[in-house]
Amino acid sequence: MSAVADQTGRHGARIGLDELARFCTAGLSAVGADDATAEAATRAMIHGSRCGVDSHGVRLLPHYATVLREGRVNPRPTLAFSSKGGAVATLDADDAHGALATYSAMDRAVEIAGGQGIGAVAIRNSSHFGPAGAYALAAAERGAIGIVMCNSDAFVRLHGGARRFHGTNPIACAIPNPDGAPWLLDMATSAIPYNRVKLYESLGVDLPEAVASDAEGRNTADPAAVEMLAPLGAAFGFKGAGLAGLVEIFSAVLSGMGLSFDLLPMGGPDLSTPRGLGAFVMAVRTDAFVDREIFDRGMRRYVGELRAGATARGAEVMAPGDREWAEAERRTSYGAPVDPATMTEFRSLADRYGLEMPATAGSGSTPPAQAGAS
Amino acid sequence: MSAVADQTGRHGARIGLDELARFCTAGLSAVGADDATAEAATRAMIHGSRCGVDSHGVRLLPHYATVLREGRVNPRPTLAFSSKGGAVATLDADDAHGALATYSAMDRAVEIAGGQGIGAVAIRNSSHFGPAGAYALAAAERGAIGIVMCNSDAFVRLHGGARRFHGTNPIACAIPNPDGAPWLLDMATSAIPYNRVKLYESLGVDLPEAVASDAEGRNTADPAAVEMLAPLGAAFGFKGAGLAGLVEIFSAVLSGMGLSFDLLPMGGPDLSTPRGLGAFVMAVRTDAFVDREIFDRGMRRYVGELRAGATARGAEVMAPGDREWAEAERRTSYGAPVDPATMTEFRSLADRYGLEMPATAGSGSTPPAQAGAS
Repeated sequence: MSAVADQTGRHGARIGLDELARFCTAGLSAVGADDATAEAATRAMIHGSRCGVDSHGVRLLPHYATVLREGRVNPRPTLAFSSKGGAVATLDADDAHGALATYSAMDRAVEIAGGQGIGAVAIRNSSHFGPAGAYALAAAERGAIGIVMCNSDAFVRLHGGARRFHGTNPIACAIPNPDGAPWLLDMATSAIPYNRVKLYESLGVDLPEAVASDAEGRNTADPAAVEMLAPLGAAFGFKGAGLAGLVEIFSAVLSGMGLSFDLLPMGGPDLSTPRGLGAFVMAVRTDAFVDREIFDRGMRRYVGELRAGATARGAEVMAPGDREWAEAERRTSYGAPVDPATMTEFRSLADRYGLEMPATAGSGSTPPAQAGAS
Repeated sequence: MSAVADQTGRHGARIGLDELARFCTAGLSAVGADDATAEAATRAMIHGSRCGVDSHGVRLLPHYATVLREGRVNPRPTLAFSSKGGAVATLDADDAHGALATYSAMDRAVEIAGGQGIGAVAIRNSSHFGPAGAYALAAAERGAIGIVMCNSDAFVRLHGGARRFHGTNPIACAIPNPDGAPWLLDMATSAIPYNRVKLYESLGVDLPEAVASDAEGRNTADPAAVEMLAPLGAAFGFKGAGLAGLVEIFSAVLSGMGLSFDLLPMGGPDLSTPRGLGAFVMAVRTDAFVDREIFDRGMRRYVGELRAGATARGAEVMAPGDREWAEAERRTSYGAPVDPATMTEFRSLADRYGLEMPATAGSGSTPPAQAGAS
């Protein structure tokens, strides 16, 4: 077994992406998920594990298995689209897994954009969807620009605020790139991800300035004192809070779903009541605006100049997604690291349902140095 | 004359918005602008001067008069829409003033959204449009969500970069609010506006951390050393740079126009060659997704909770636009301050074309304390 160090310095496993996908699909099917749910949730988790976004990768499998079993997420939903306008639709997802709901909504948005140039779908009664970028990417893989937004349970203060008000409310956008993998932005509108706060805490180092706050809304550098995250922008945090609000309104108000501070927390204790999450997706067909060769020439020049420009000493410049695509190439060859806690939960799941554990990557394959943390 | 202190401590005038609008329209007409151009440019400048965004207010009049006269901006353009899809269009603005192009494009987007639920227009061959929020607001005034993006000449480095790459590339979004003025976000994707750097320089104070850089791309607190702005986000500046890139691609690549580093600077010396600016606008009809009363109830609750929540000591929380609307109310009653340099240019314009100078506000009206700087 090729043991690799995880971020906390203990040891986990490195496992090929195909084996991980097989195990995820088997685990979801074992708890009663229909094929569409198992396939969509697996696809989203593998996107995370492939691109190095491990917080939204296969470590979510045990959680998803639990909520599918306990009733929060409907394992056999009936998705229902309705439309009151030619280029838009609403999807009532029947408490489906968020991946099934969001991939389905983006498929519909891309279909609409095929005729109308642009298509948008508001999603009702969905659930946790993991990596927002996965669904934006699904549009780009079909030649369209994809935009995805979702609110989540409150953990980010307002600018000047001292209360958890917004979720980390991500925005993702994927744009087809003629010379390679799509331009892919997938960002929380908080100043820092909560995972990063926990990492700093375990490493015993101070947080960067103005990224998280104590219970009174004061910035703190002490990871253990963090009660809420700050919005992106520090002294200009009204920008991050404004972007979070934009995501909130498109995801929750335009779908009639719960605001971030209404939502049940992801982790329970109640794992049987549906969370009633909203989300919003949009697809844009570029050749509805400009000829394909003009768009391609513009993207080529933009990304080329971006990568070729002067950098600060010791720094590098990357296009959104470049770090993720480099990591994806590495993990496609050498497998993805799985942390020890997740491996333990995988074994419980395998024992309970009689599943074959995913095979670890061969000991002969040592991956090259990892890309820096994003 | 009711003299008021401007930001540099010298004295300017306070002038009623109607008088400012009259003078702007007269000045633009005097240099040959057709009625549609004069009206649109005036409307956008008055939005800036009314809401306290003086950098994009009536101080732009002398510049606009110059570029309309010198040929950079076409004073009598023929706007041409074309469409290759049901819910999208492209506007070739014939080097029109940016305000005419963008108001016209948003009008079309709102019309499209009336039937399709959503409408988007890419703008070609436009010019400087001033305050992005003005055009988003134009959609909200007609009951639709408006989104506006525009790139501009390069002044902002990439994350890790040491070159002026993106413009300040603003994003604006206006959302109808049942209980008052629209929710209105109008933000540059840079960490700080360049105007603010100049203000700190004149006040002799240090810049906030990680908002601007020297020629080598290193952060600097010295306003005089600033060669480029930083992207929003400080240590997480890849987010601000990613948002700037999104704006750049929608504004310039999707319209086939120049990238930020291609654009002639706003200030000359060449004021006769059209700048070939692109932009992107979108309108969304909320009742195409959800019934009006559900949307209204959601907005009411969201904005109400936002304003009512706990704040950090000494801080206040506002919805995007709240500061601007408070200032608009004040200026509608008491007039807008006009800085001395702009007053001097107004006098030159009035002398050259035989225009009546705008009357200053009566000395009896003393405005209440100004809202804090945003």
